[in-house]
Amino acid sequence: MALSPEAARAYELDRKHVFHSWSAQATLTPTVLTSAEGCYVTDGEGNRLLDFSSMLVNTNIGHQHPKVVAAIAEQAAKLCTVAPHFANEARSEAARLIAERTPGDLDTIFFTNGGADAIEHAVRMARLHTGRYKVLSRYRSYHGGTETAVNVTGDPRRWANDHGNTGTVHFFGPFLYRSEFHSVDEAQETERALAHLARTIELEGPSTIAAIVLESVPGTAGIMVPTPEYMQGVRELCDRHGIVFIADEVMAGFGRTGKWFAIEHFDVVPDLITFAKGVNSGYVPLGGVAISAEIAATFADRVYPGGLTYSGHPLATAAAVATINAMADEGIVENAADIGERVLGPGLRELASRHPSVGEVRGLGMFWALELVREQATKEPLAPYGGTSPAMGELVAACRAGGLLPFVNFNRLHAVPPCVLTESEAKEGLAILDQALTVADAYTS
Amino acid sequence: MALSPEAARAYELDRKHVFHSWSAQATLTPTVLTSAEGCYVTDGEGNRLLDFSSMLVNTNIGHQHPKVVAAIAEQAAKLCTVAPHFANEARSEAARLIAERTPGDLDTIFFTNGGADAIEHAVRMARLHTGRYKVLSRYRSYHGGTETAVNVTGDPRRWANDHGNTGTVHFFGPFLYRSEFHSVDEAQETERALAHLARTIELEGPSTIAAIVLESVPGTAGIMVPTPEYMQGVRELCDRHGIVFIADEVMAGFGRTGKWFAIEHFDVVPDLITFAKGVNSGYVPLGGVAISAEIAATFADRVYPGGLTYSGHPLATAAAVATINAMADEGIVENAADIGERVLGPGLRELASRHPSVGEVRGLGMFWALELVREQATKEPLAPYGGTSPAMGELVAACRAGGLLPFVNFNRLHAVPPCVLTESEAKEGLAILDQALTVADAYTS
Repeated sequence: MALSPEAARAYELDRKHVFHSWSAQATLTPTVLTSAEGCYVTDGEGNRLLDFSSMLVNTNIGHQHPKVVAAIAEQAAKLCTVAPHFANEARSEAARLIAERTPGDLDTIFFTNGGADAIEHAVRMARLHTGRYKVLSRYRSYHGGTETAVNVTGDPRRWANDHGNTGTVHFFGPFLYRSEFHSVDEAQETERALAHLARTIELEGPSTIAAIVLESVPGTAGIMVPTPEYMQGVRELCDRHGIVFIADEVMAGFGRTGKWFAIEHFDVVPDLITFAKGVNSGYVPLGGVAISAEIAATFADRVYPGGLTYSGHPLATAAAVATINAMADEGIVENAADIGERVLGPGLRELASRHPSVGEVRGLGMFWALELVREQATKEPLAPYGGTSPAMGELVAACRAGGLLPFVNFNRLHAVPPCVLTESEAKEGLAILDQALTVADAYTS
Repeated sequence: MALSPEAARAYELDRKHVFHSWSAQATLTPTVLTSAEGCYVTDGEGNRLLDFSSMLVNTNIGHQHPKVVAAIAEQAAKLCTVAPHFANEARSEAARLIAERTPGDLDTIFFTNGGADAIEHAVRMARLHTGRYKVLSRYRSYHGGTETAVNVTGDPRRWANDHGNTGTVHFFGPFLYRSEFHSVDEAQETERALAHLARTIELEGPSTIAAIVLESVPGTAGIMVPTPEYMQGVRELCDRHGIVFIADEVMAGFGRTGKWFAIEHFDVVPDLITFAKGVNSGYVPLGGVAISAEIAATFADRVYPGGLTYSGHPLATAAAVATINAMADEGIVENAADIGERVLGPGLRELASRHPSVGEVRGLGMFWALELVREQATKEPLAPYGGTSPAMGELVAACRAGGLLPFVNFNRLHAVPPCVLTESEAKEGLAILDQALTVADAYTS
């Protein structure tokens, strides 16, 4: 099939004028996307693809939800933008709806443009609140692309930006499948990972540590769902040492795990929650930080030294209001939990039982990872850490040929569809994956 | 007058749930804005105010331009969001329209969410391109709120975020009214400021300096329009030492100075231009970096280690396409130049001749600063650097009472209305300022 004239023009101008994220520019051949609806997108050749990536795990409500589209048009006609020092109806209502859903007393909302600047500001708040500088985060994590955020990050995207001067220290989190602690079960992994964190805090010096930043469920790094006991242990360590607990819910929040916030799975209240993506499914750029009463009080009479022109942008927050209301009215968070538990999770586990290339299936809700290996016994990854491989390239091509957009990172394929996925769409995706995995199986020994 | 019920609700929820930029939260009493059109906004009590602030100097096309509002609704109905690794019609066309207007070969566009992350990525590109780390920028400048951007910034907002570890060094730029170099005229100020920069480079070590970042015309810091000779001299120094010249046009770009880019006034081609605000008047959050062919080539085969979920967001870039086309079709950039030169500039100078509180009038296009002083002879500012004063507070209150929203920073009042300002709107604003300045005059000695 050939590109439509409009898509061909979009492609040509892209190659001439657009600089792409995280890429060597000369080697790119980007797929043109021209339209989308629900769990499907259409490319420039007219192919309809089942979106098991939710783009970058952001379209939790699905593509082009009519209520959100209508709300954007309505707010655009009313008032697109106001400066952050004014007050505005859309911003106020979005803050209320988010605060209503955050755990504990995280009832004050600072709006940003996305996840990276949410992390930048959360770290700043923690540093000023504690008077300390250092930030601890885990290896195998992603927290954003700006300088502080990418240095908090524990994946290879940090390396080229790491000059050793941002006050970030990385530790190992729980990850039983590739345990750093030689654990044999989840209980042991939890216990040992907590002991490791406690020891790291002791040796780094508790009085130097402003914050521990953790994705409630690490996303791009591999969807390693921690135990409630681990997260409760982190909370305890933070309490003991006066360290701010920042739960990064940029990817895991707003329904992705089958709860409004992933942290609810663990019965833990962090001090700050960062969010973006799912808050309005990325229909308009928006992120933010939900702030505890104690940290908000730090800035009651003291100026918070941070801000941005589009903080609390009316169009972005109106999209959040419509998104949250539609998700609540239509039971979309409950759907993510139900389809995940009843169809997608069991279906992926069933694939794993038949495909030798699948080393492990992990996840919950609409948030699943397949760990792909050359051999189940050795767990040798199908692509090296930080890289890719012919096997992974062919797997992606097979998914696309079968009509599915996957999310891929190193040796993992993530099944992260919109939270509105139906049972039949889940089964369609599983069938395509079943076919595509035979390509990966051919690389097993 | 009382707030409408909707506005009262917006205010109440704001005070309960919204955390505001650059503020001590307990002392805020934000004005509710409910609607806007062209150069006017309406507050929650129904007062119509002439917007001489363009919010935060971003609504260059005026409020609620019908073509941009329509384009947002149209793109929302078509396709709100795609991930950055795809290609998309709106993004491609926005990149083309911007590249068509940038000077020289800055024809590759990396889209971000706003100005701060544009600076973050421009600095990163410069560091990787040169293999050097240090960044030079001027005192009296603003470059954004994230960690790298706020440390490049040369104003007090940096202080609470300055831990001495971001590799930023500040020098003095040309500013004849408060000359660091004891100059008596612009030619001397240019010559001495260039010598100071050359000396700073020499003593810091040219081989350590990745970039010089300069607002083409410093904005919030005071609208000090440099001479073409100064900017050409900076270009020469950068060429001589292999330093990347980053022109920050977040505030000055897209018509503000009566040109598409302010750098056009100086006949200089920088290596990178950062933009945001005016690119789509902030109707949807958008920023970016325009990249020279040489720097783009650095990342042809080498991965650029940066990115963001909403890079090249369809809704944001569709708003940019509509904004740029409307500005071109309606001669809005030319209007900014014409009204600035013929009405607003002369009108402000006439006010200065009658009001002892006005020490200097500076600017061009729709970009003007009044430097307010206790005494013209001593130039003693009407508020201290980094602070405010009863005099400035009363001046702002008088503007508001007269029906005008000003932009104020320390001892300066900026007249920075939308670029669509008509002659009669300019005269209306001048008349309100004339009244309000009598309040400031009362503080002169």
